[in-house]
Amino acid sequence: MRTLTAGEALTILRGLQDVCILIHRSPDGDCIGSGYALHLLLKSFGIRSKVACADTIPAMYAALTDGVEFEEFEPRCFVAVDVADRGLLGTLNEQYPDCEVKLCIDHHISNAGYAEQNYWNPDASAACELMFTLLRDNEIPMTEQIARCLYVGIATDTGCFKFDNAKADTFAAIAEIKRQYPNLPYARLNRELFDLKSRGRLVLDARLMENVQMSADGKVALIYLPYAWMTELGVTKDETDGLANLPMQILGVEVAITVKQQETGEYRVSMRGGDYADVSAICQRFGGGGHVKAGGCSIYDGEPQEVCKMLMDVASAMLNA
Amino acid sequence: MRTLTAGEALTILRGLQDVCILIHRSPDGDCIGSGYALHLLLKSFGIRSKVACADTIPAMYAALTDGVEFEEFEPRCFVAVDVADRGLLGTLNEQYPDCEVKLCIDHHISNAGYAEQNYWNPDASAACELMFTLLRDNEIPMTEQIARCLYVGIATDTGCFKFDNAKADTFAAIAEIKRQYPNLPYARLNRELFDLKSRGRLVLDARLMENVQMSADGKVALIYLPYAWMTELGVTKDETDGLANLPMQILGVEVAITVKQQETGEYRVSMRGGDYADVSAICQRFGGGGHVKAGGCSIYDGEPQEVCKMLMDVASAMLNA
Repeated sequence: MRTLTAGEALTILRGLQDVCILIHRSPDGDCIGSGYALHLLLKSFGIRSKVACADTIPAMYAALTDGVEFEEFEPRCFVAVDVADRGLLGTLNEQYPDCEVKLCIDHHISNAGYAEQNYWNPDASAACELMFTLLRDNEIPMTEQIARCLYVGIATDTGCFKFDNAKADTFAAIAEIKRQYPNLPYARLNRELFDLKSRGRLVLDARLMENVQMSADGKVALIYLPYAWMTELGVTKDETDGLANLPMQILGVEVAITVKQQETGEYRVSMRGGDYADVSAICQRFGGGGHVKAGGCSIYDGEPQEVCKMLMDVASAMLNA
Repeated sequence: MRTLTAGEALTILRGLQDVCILIHRSPDGDCIGSGYALHLLLKSFGIRSKVACADTIPAMYAALTDGVEFEEFEPRCFVAVDVADRGLLGTLNEQYPDCEVKLCIDHHISNAGYAEQNYWNPDASAACELMFTLLRDNEIPMTEQIARCLYVGIATDTGCFKFDNAKADTFAAIAEIKRQYPNLPYARLNRELFDLKSRGRLVLDARLMENVQMSADGKVALIYLPYAWMTELGVTKDETDGLANLPMQILGVEVAITVKQQETGEYRVSMRGGDYADVSAICQRFGGGGHVKAGGCSIYDGEPQEVCKMLMDVASAMLNA
């Protein structure tokens, strides 16, 4: 896919009016950070804009949204940030059917190319890293509020700089953000974003780990979450988002399987892979898919024990194949 | 304390022969990383050296120590890295009584100034960040093995770039390391250093969280570890090192208290503070001390429930004072 230069992207942005900034459903730190940063940038140009999302912004991102208010207006154009595919807009597709997206700022290798123009780099760790480059290459100063947005987005998408998508350029971007704004509460933001959990979620984690099932000499681990536990512990669906990483923490685990029973009785399965397992291949056996190190599938019936055993057996067999 | 320039430190290092590199007891990623990096640097100058530590290097640092072998020789001089105080040398003080430390490379603000010369910067996140500066300012290329040592040390001392000691210069150093060596297994190292736990430790965490005690409207949290659980779950003392951070993960907690019963019956208490609590002051009430956000004390007798209640009561009272 062809990408604009930072200069070309800026020229497009400066020519817009009454902009609706689209971010993806189930919003995370990166789409919120890049969306709000873009809003603040457009505002500094005297251009009216608002961020639109199919879902409510989670409270943990209050540091980005507090104090930002959007005017009511009928959008005259659309820009998408961190949205790889129109489907990820969720209900915004009904609110703005077939809207023409003038510009998409994105870092997903899988970007579907639905926008008229793209400022796109699949080597960037986050859409926020692209926003950083856009500003830097155009010599536009970062305000403190924009710096905070970009920090949160980059930190979120790199697992607080833990994943391999945090490359040299990513670290250089954060070095520059911290050089310009040494006193932002980075450690506190990190604690809020990565460490804090509700007591209910912590008790849930505990209970899941006490009941972890293992096979293939400890290389396959499975946790099963009955729907009743969520109600009992008052844990929301949002709160269980990062659960799939839990069994990956066990020393020696190569395939980590998380099975969440839904209210409907359906089982939603997430898998994570370690050094060599291809969990996408395992998920495909159950009609799912994904990436080598992160995949998922759904199973529509069966008793919990059977479903878990079947998943463990297939994963173990494929791991040892 | 006066610090040498990178050039002066290098001049001293180049003049040494048969060097014993001293690191602190209970070795962590930073002293191991800087110690091994210094050994590799001296080796490249044709200078014989070895790393000495009072305790065994934990297996999780195998990525730094594998393939490095030290010759047997009688040391003719000593260099300390990441050692703030002679006391931290542990039993090395008996092995090398009153040894003259020619040079200390350190980043602790509390450095006691016991060495003849110091290459010291309390703003550096890690001794490994100082080693990075030493090489960079002297235009000495980093080998891949040295880069790996420096990465691990800096990552360890900053909680994988999560703490506020990870400043702009820290991120710039990692950017340079990743630019020169983009293919080191950073994410795998991070997983090994920060995420992986034994199954016993994970079950222990789970059980501790299920039994967490809370007071002061959820601002004080306490976990109590009976000695019997360690034996039952096969968890070693080393493995419980990071336990004090566990209750800090609960949303809203301002004082996190961890009480570990020892084999002798003594209670070792660690406290962590959130945004405003001074846990050092709380620990002082029990004859201990520490820093504002991390302190500790020992309690020598009492029934577990009484001890826990007393700690919670004092912490709650001081928090609300």
